[in-house]
Amino acid sequence: MIFLESDYTEGAHEAILQALTRTNLQSVSGYGADPYCQRAKEKIRQACQCPQADIYFFVGGSQTNGAVIRSFLSPCEGVVCADSGHIFTNEGGTVEFSGHKVMTLPNCQGKLDPAQLEAYLARCQADPIANHKVHPGMVYISHPTELGTLYTAEELEQLHRICRQYQLPLYLDGARLGYGLMAEGASVDLPLIARYCDAFYIGGTKVGALCGEALVFPNHNAPKYFFTLMKQHGALLAKGRLLGVQFDALFTDDLYFKISRHAIQMANQLKAGLREKGYDFYLESPTNQQFVIFPSHQAARLSDKVKFSIWQPLGDDKVVVRLVTSWATQPSALGQLMELL
Amino acid sequence: MIFLESDYTEGAHEAILQALTRTNLQSVSGYGADPYCQRAKEKIRQACQCPQADIYFFVGGSQTNGAVIRSFLSPCEGVVCADSGHIFTNEGGTVEFSGHKVMTLPNCQGKLDPAQLEAYLARCQADPIANHKVHPGMVYISHPTELGTLYTAEELEQLHRICRQYQLPLYLDGARLGYGLMAEGASVDLPLIARYCDAFYIGGTKVGALCGEALVFPNHNAPKYFFTLMKQHGALLAKGRLLGVQFDALFTDDLYFKISRHAIQMANQLKAGLREKGYDFYLESPTNQQFVIFPSHQAARLSDKVKFSIWQPLGDDKVVVRLVTSWATQPSALGQLMELL
Amino acid sequence: MIFLESDYTEGAHEAILQALTRTNLQSVSGYGADPYCQRAKEKIRQACQCPQADIYFFVGGSQTNGAVIRSFLSPCEGVVCADSGHIFTNEGGTVEFSGHKVMTLPNCQGKLDPAQLEAYLARCQADPIANHKVHPGMVYISHPTELGTLYTAEELEQLHRICRQYQLPLYLDGARLGYGLMAEGASVDLPLIARYCDAFYIGGTKVGALCGEALVFPNHNAPKYFFTLMKQHGALLAKGRLLGVQFDALFTDDLYFKISRHAIQMANQLKAGLREKGYDFYLESPTNQQFVIFPSHQAARLSDKVKFSIWQPLGDDKVVVRLVTSWATQPSALGQLMELL
Amino acid sequence: MIFLESDYTEGAHEAILQALTRTNLQSVSGYGADPYCQRAKEKIRQACQCPQADIYFFVGGSQTNGAVIRSFLSPCEGVVCADSGHIFTNEGGTVEFSGHKVMTLPNCQGKLDPAQLEAYLARCQADPIANHKVHPGMVYISHPTELGTLYTAEELEQLHRICRQYQLPLYLDGARLGYGLMAEGASVDLPLIARYCDAFYIGGTKVGALCGEALVFPNHNAPKYFFTLMKQHGALLAKGRLLGVQFDALFTDDLYFKISRHAIQMANQLKAGLREKGYDFYLESPTNQQFVIFPSHQAARLSDKVKFSIWQPLGDDKVVVRLVTSWATQPSALGQLMELL
Repeated sequence: MIFLESDYTEGAHEAILQALTRTNLQSVSGYGADPYCQRAKEKIRQACQCPQADIYFFVGGSQTNGAVIRSFLSPCEGVVCADSGHIFTNEGGTVEFSGHKVMTLPNCQGKLDPAQLEAYLARCQADPIANHKVHPGMVYISHPTELGTLYTAEELEQLHRICRQYQLPLYLDGARLGYGLMAEGASVDLPLIARYCDAFYIGGTKVGALCGEALVFPNHNAPKYFFTLMKQHGALLAKGRLLGVQFDALFTDDLYFKISRHAIQMANQLKAGLREKGYDFYLESPTNQQFVIFPSHQAARLSDKVKFSIWQPLGDDKVVVRLVTSWATQPSALGQLMELL
Repeated sequence: MIFLESDYTEGAHEAILQALTRTNLQSVSGYGADPYCQRAKEKIRQACQCPQADIYFFVGGSQTNGAVIRSFLSPCEGVVCADSGHIFTNEGGTVEFSGHKVMTLPNCQGKLDPAQLEAYLARCQADPIANHKVHPGMVYISHPTELGTLYTAEELEQLHRICRQYQLPLYLDGARLGYGLMAEGASVDLPLIARYCDAFYIGGTKVGALCGEALVFPNHNAPKYFFTLMKQHGALLAKGRLLGVQFDALFTDDLYFKISRHAIQMANQLKAGLREKGYDFYLESPTNQQFVIFPSHQAARLSDKVKFSIWQPLGDDKVVVRLVTSWATQPSALGQLMELL
Repeated sequence: MIFLESDYTEGAHEAILQALTRTNLQSVSGYGADPYCQRAKEKIRQACQCPQADIYFFVGGSQTNGAVIRSFLSPCEGVVCADSGHIFTNEGGTVEFSGHKVMTLPNCQGKLDPAQLEAYLARCQADPIANHKVHPGMVYISHPTELGTLYTAEELEQLHRICRQYQLPLYLDGARLGYGLMAEGASVDLPLIARYCDAFYIGGTKVGALCGEALVFPNHNAPKYFFTLMKQHGALLAKGRLLGVQFDALFTDDLYFKISRHAIQMANQLKAGLREKGYDFYLESPTNQQFVIFPSHQAARLSDKVKFSIWQPLGDDKVVVRLVTSWATQPSALGQLMELL
Repeated sequence: MIFLESDYTEGAHEAILQALTRTNLQSVSGYGADPYCQRAKEKIRQACQCPQADIYFFVGGSQTNGAVIRSFLSPCEGVVCADSGHIFTNEGGTVEFSGHKVMTLPNCQGKLDPAQLEAYLARCQADPIANHKVHPGMVYISHPTELGTLYTAEELEQLHRICRQYQLPLYLDGARLGYGLMAEGASVDLPLIARYCDAFYIGGTKVGALCGEALVFPNHNAPKYFFTLMKQHGALLAKGRLLGVQFDALFTDDLYFKISRHAIQMANQLKAGLREKGYDFYLESPTNQQFVIFPSHQAARLSDKVKFSIWQPLGDDKVVVRLVTSWATQPSALGQLMELL
């Protein structure tokens, strides 16, 4: 079976497993008060060029989103995002569970359009009965988006400026951040994100870790009692080392970037192969998620030998198929896929 | 430094790390739909003698408690527990975050007394203005308790009977369950728990795993949409395998029980040594947590060389100190401690 | 000043004030355990032809919606409604506050289209990753809608059938129900609503009461602990009589229907007058809310002498204006308006 | 039947009904934007000597408590109160519904003891694992308390000082405030409360209104979006006038104080009569709630002719009975009671 289903179908990069093994019997205090977490945080601060950053490690992305969003919003505020945003579509109502509304704008190939955002916030502000309604309280974007697309540096700067104007925190969900940073033509890097966002997380689970996301408040701006809030959300690991050791390894010798680049190379190879065979793409994605248009019968037949997901049906008996590469994708797997097509 | 601070100061038992390494590059589907999770569940069902059990893996105990309690309670119900219960004292308000009240009764050496529980439920039922108040909706116990004590089989049966009578689910928090099962004189085993409880979890984090708790609904009685509820609570791991592989290892060749027994042996050795030196105990604990009375100045002095926690001050310039053994405790560490006393 | 701003700009119908005055010094027990509430409930049961109905009185509509929706949904369920639904647009996030998502479909002149609903529910059911998402848990409609439109008996029957098929409660928000029942050509009456809905409320605040909504669970199907849930939501009046007396008066001698009919007559007179003067309507509303297209400058000028609300801007320097009649509207006020146009 | 069951067994003081009748057909805007609300607020500001106060009207006490407490607390904070506090015992879990914990200290005849509070807050601050626990976020007191007792000016000043020191808002629940202000020997008045509390409400429901509580933030310190929060809690009346007119009447010509004094006079007469007949009191209450010790059989017999509530059983076949006077209590009712004893 060829796995192109997601970027979390294998365990961890071997350097991570080795680090876990190497440090395994060292006795350290719990809940993140260990030297591995400290070291990992220091390396991330350097990579982001924000020496004052507050950093917290989480086990997964929905958990991180849930905690950050709740910590930023006051009771009658909601979070604004594109209607393709993971927090709106696929997180089982985590935001609503914490009492808040997700306020959506139509996505532009997965992205939140700065002009639309600005117009929306202006409309909210001018609304004569605004005080009967949920107030926009922060802005959520994902980078790469759920559709594999990327914001440009200019777009990110615009979002930042609009958020500043309306005094709304800007939060970036980087579940697949490495793949976004290493994409060809990417104009957004970690220091830029740290400069333009009030919080963001560097995804580990989908980029080589067993589990783990590193949440960054770049300006020492973690909300009050954020540690307790993690506890309250069930997000505090007794063995915090599990996350510290992994991020320490990921940010040693550029491992995070190297393995991300590998996934991009695999995606490019996949795209080239599919193009050569005449397949159309649902949209142009520069990252590790590719959305390809297949005849329905071919998708059905292929599913015996390849694991992938059906993104959505199209007309004319066609479907959009999502194929995902990762740090662990073997070139041979892509070769086998091409032979099957 | 001698670590007797908690049972989560080291990584994982080596058999677990080996299993993670061995299976690392196998490609499997995410979110628990992998063969390791399936195998671990099957082994746990056998160990509990409940072939119909629904089993879910969580990353930590607070998370598990939060999800189970919310799934069992309807809007105006609360969870009844001893006032020493972890959900009341130390989980940052997880239960309240999900909208529910923790309703406490005075603990009896960490335990919920069946007679007190019965009297309380009868009082609630007879209360003429009960419908202005939170209704008891389930009962929470921990085993071993936060004070290291254990319920007897008879007490567990009584709690079960009372809960049945009042139609309340009985939930057992087994964060340190292995140590309770292997304690000398323990009359409660896994099949008994499965028979008397509506849900319980088998703690992994404190018993040799990197992280992980196995939640068991013994009678195929998981609440509706429980999987989605895990997602909503941020408790669903993309790489579910991380938990499946670990519990598969823990329930292979009785590893869970063997390493728990080791901790008990270490605790017994610790107790014997302290007794010999004339120390008094705050209470009699048959498990891996020992509560010892130290002169304050000695506790202060010791803290340079030994990691432990101050449980509470006593009068007369004394303190109760908690010393914890685990699967990873070395006899040599106990020897060194004795030399320091 | 001419008030056509809403149907809550005056106090109560005089028969209600008289009833309050007449009963004022009678001593009765609190929290709804009084003879006025009992009598009002009995009259409503008769009017709805559902002798088994559970009935609860609330102070306002948002409060009622919040309590009913929370009581019907389990943790990972959301409420499906049209995107013009009051609970989605104008209630300050009441549903999200209670932990639930509002799941919207595009409105058809304020209504939820049965065919669209059916297709949506089918899609949700067929979704391979449905268990990562909020599940549809109930359906909300308003009648009359926020745009003044009405469901036909056939549409209501279809919604009922679809909800039955998917085992979802159907809930009808009747904030302005009287005006819907008395509209010309209305095919929906109270017994029909009681037959097709699992819960609905009969609005009093906007139909002649000082405050008050009568929530009906037609089949003795109030959720468990609903009284306590009202208390928890702050919706339980100590002097429950305030609502009992008012609904007793409203359902005596058909007062509710008579005063509703008056508002419809006023609306019809208003419509005829505006049509005669050549105004266009944004949509055809058979009830007491009329949506008229005005040149922007005229709306601005008129606002000195008439209280109304701007519903939304249109292109070409025009606006949609909402004009509302009520039980209290005087024909003379309409005459004065016509003179101003 | 003699009603001494509560202070909400009649409708409204006649001056209030007259005001409602007099203003009934005046057309005004909704949601509190009417001249009656404005006038009532101005009078309350004067009575409290805090011209900058933000004032909001609610329908009931639980609703007010729920909204204020949620608006003051951040996610991981709880509200500290005596274990006899209404929010802990009798409000159906309103505080927990909004995600927060009620943190109790043992009551001293219904009061929160300043010294105990101070010691508790110091303990919380010194706790080495405080960040795993709910943080004290505000302090709640009721005045008069649920047991009819009163804080002295000195105690209130102490609570204020402690709260200031720990940066916690102090909130006073004045459901029966009028009776507290008019009690003999009372040293606390409205301006003092406004000086020492960050928020408090002046109860109307139990002091002559049909319904209504006036919430005061004395220093223009209403939390952000408080109006929307009221909407979200279902606490915003469309016909806000209903509350404005009532409080306007209550604060005209000292009506609020006069009718409160009447209740105190009735309570004093009741106490004197009972003392004369040899009854003992459970505690000394200077306000309108009296807690009297009755033989159980007498309480049972009396319940045919007198409405009262059994507060709690005592030993020796005795019970504590609560007898409540109000603005509406007739001297003749007390006379009839005496004849029955």
